[in-house]
Amino acid sequence: MRFSLIIIGNELLNGKIQDLNTHFLASELFQRGFELRTSQLIQDNESEFQTALSAHLANSEIVIITGGLGPTKDDLTKKMLAKFFGLKMTFHQEAYDLVKSHYQRANRTYDKEKSDYHNLPQEFTALYNPQGNAPGIFAQKDEKKIFCLPGVPSEFESMLLEEVFPPLEKISEKKSMRHLIYKTWKLHESQIFNDVCPKLWEELEKYGEVSSLPHLLGVDIAVKIDGIDHHKLQTKQKAIHALMLNSPLKDYIWHIGPETVAEVIINQAKKKNLKIGFAESCTGGLLASKITDISGSSSVFWGSIISYSNEVKINTLNVSPKTLETYGAVSKETALEMAIGAKQELGVDIVVTTTGIAGPGGATDTKPVGTVGIGFATKNRSDSELLYFRGKRTVLKERFATAALFKLLEVINEF
Amino acid sequence: MRFSLIIIGNELLNGKIQDLNTHFLASELFQRGFELRTSQLIQDNESEFQTALSAHLANSEIVIITGGLGPTKDDLTKKMLAKFFGLKMTFHQEAYDLVKSHYQRANRTYDKEKSDYHNLPQEFTALYNPQGNAPGIFAQKDEKKIFCLPGVPSEFESMLLEEVFPPLEKISEKKSMRHLIYKTWKLHESQIFNDVCPKLWEELEKYGEVSSLPHLLGVDIAVKIDGIDHHKLQTKQKAIHALMLNSPLKDYIWHIGPETVAEVIINQAKKKNLKIGFAESCTGGLLASKITDISGSSSVFWGSIISYSNEVKINTLNVSPKTLETYGAVSKETALEMAIGAKQELGVDIVVTTTGIAGPGGATDTKPVGTVGIGFATKNRSDSELLYFRGKRTVLKERFATAALFKLLEVINEF
Repeated sequence: MRFSLIIIGNELLNGKIQDLNTHFLASELFQRGFELRTSQLIQDNESEFQTALSAHLANSEIVIITGGLGPTKDDLTKKMLAKFFGLKMTFHQEAYDLVKSHYQRANRTYDKEKSDYHNLPQEFTALYNPQGNAPGIFAQKDEKKIFCLPGVPSEFESMLLEEVFPPLEKISEKKSMRHLIYKTWKLHESQIFNDVCPKLWEELEKYGEVSSLPHLLGVDIAVKIDGIDHHKLQTKQKAIHALMLNSPLKDYIWHIGPETVAEVIINQAKKKNLKIGFAESCTGGLLASKITDISGSSSVFWGSIISYSNEVKINTLNVSPKTLETYGAVSKETALEMAIGAKQELGVDIVVTTTGIAGPGGATDTKPVGTVGIGFATKNRSDSELLYFRGKRTVLKERFATAALFKLLEVINEF
Repeated sequence: MRFSLIIIGNELLNGKIQDLNTHFLASELFQRGFELRTSQLIQDNESEFQTALSAHLANSEIVIITGGLGPTKDDLTKKMLAKFFGLKMTFHQEAYDLVKSHYQRANRTYDKEKSDYHNLPQEFTALYNPQGNAPGIFAQKDEKKIFCLPGVPSEFESMLLEEVFPPLEKISEKKSMRHLIYKTWKLHESQIFNDVCPKLWEELEKYGEVSSLPHLLGVDIAVKIDGIDHHKLQTKQKAIHALMLNSPLKDYIWHIGPETVAEVIINQAKKKNLKIGFAESCTGGLLASKITDISGSSSVFWGSIISYSNEVKINTLNVSPKTLETYGAVSKETALEMAIGAKQELGVDIVVTTTGIAGPGGATDTKPVGTVGIGFATKNRSDSELLYFRGKRTVLKERFATAALFKLLEVINEF
């Protein structure tokens, strides 16, 4: 089943907000063995809408449209849709009932003279929106299914999961699809495929579509295999595993599977019964936030001291004022003392620390923007190093945090 | 000047990674008075590419294509482009020189037998990529300009700023565009436009395109005005200000301008010479990260204690074990004690705290997932409250952090 997504939104094309719905839809479709053919962001006007809808109806069985269902005058999706199919806008009792009950729960009265939620194009039906006022709408036209959903991510997400997918899953042919993912580090994409394993790509391609995704500190190699025969899939999977684990790349694989480095850390720390903590300066909470995004992190993550000021480094982390004066806050020495101090303060088995210059200000002659000290301390040993990255402030925070997570994974692997 | 963006990437349509380039391009274009007409994500295959490129060349003066310029076999953009325009792929000396010097700087040798970076479609020229190996490419065909840039966000961003915009800005007509943004809180979109100010939209529309963007805790209302006459723009702007500040909505405006709540907090704290800090449980670093995303935050943000475990709440924040036992970690009482303890520990003027249930586990009979205690402490007073939100784990972290930032802004406004 092939899907197209049309996102209507001037505020997205103006850069005021970022589209989060494509990514959510894409992952959910992939998990279900459905295909997202395209996603297009268009301006909120009649002719763009007509062109996009014609194009996407021609190529996909299911078209999802988001945005423009709200209560203000720039919310025109329903009217544009009615015009496209030559339908009248009419009063829909079920839409009226849905909205009325929403208003009642919030102790407000729905006034159908002032609002327009209950008017839908004829032949369309209303879909329940558990998170907001505007109902979604749906129609089957010829062989195609058209869904309109609100653009607000929480509303879009819950309607997809509750209103869109369940009926489609019932009618779809069961075809299994698997993505085998090998996560590598310490080599560039071109080193892997030109130097270390020049034939790997071709060999993997015999089994399915190969893709390669370079990251800051490594490359994810994926092979997509599909079929309806469970046994054949298993055989393919074993052959690919054997190929990868007998190749010179085997020493560079840090994980097999779709999990992120933060998820692998949580799983490993749980298995090994380790308590972890951080002391962060330049990452300013991002490092801890990446760990606490993972459900179940509370069983191994104890806490983090964000010591943005030197005072907090000295008072809470017990960094010596002399170290700060001699080597500076961004130094191997400070990163190390932060780790030792935080391990004591948080009462954990492993601490990893970050102290760096995220910019745009703060650079010195010897320490450019992008310099970061990464330290760690465990009961067995402690150490630190200086690393250098490029990018603007928020990109650097990401990179510093990623480098710290990989350091933490290395340290956990020693236990 | 109208732009279209075509993003080629199966890994985006599979949901493995999220597109960050549209948002960056959109904001940068908007700031320059250029228009992003559409952005489309397509699969990495010939026919999708041909269809999309034809459609977008027909409607925009400038088409930017990203993705598929890398070194692996699924990187086909240059070949598809050559085929589209009926051009041969040829050796380009300037591309070769750019890549060779990149490799040299990394102490690697560029082998033109193994790699393909130096081959471009005839009539295209190479563009310097400061952040990565693959050069961008450019051609003018008839009245249209076609740019191909790498999809890696840091490379895409720096090439836009350094290679794409400067020549375009020279040839573009200088037209000023302004977005007047009024950020409101405490009212729903439908309350504003149906009940409080039923004529506001129409009145604002006399001056320019109106849009309304609902958020978790408020609504941003924007009016886009443009023109080449500076004086007329000023007059329009004054009229819109007068309209807004004389409307009943005036009491609900917390900021005029594009700044985020975190930026307003930093600016206000700087003006009032206040040191701020946090103690976070459920937001797990996200709250501090939102503040440290802002350049210059280090002059007012001292630090945050992320006390994910009760031990850290007790030891570092001095929360009483009895409070935790009697009321639980997610309670007004704990939120308040965290604030008082953190204010002492961090030595700051204002602390805001979060302690809640981000789920999916952790709910109790009386405290569902989405419950959060928000507390604060200043030299004058301290208080806390319980709030309730809906959503999945990462959405709830966002909402808890947003609620805490608005609480902080309220408290700063008291100084």
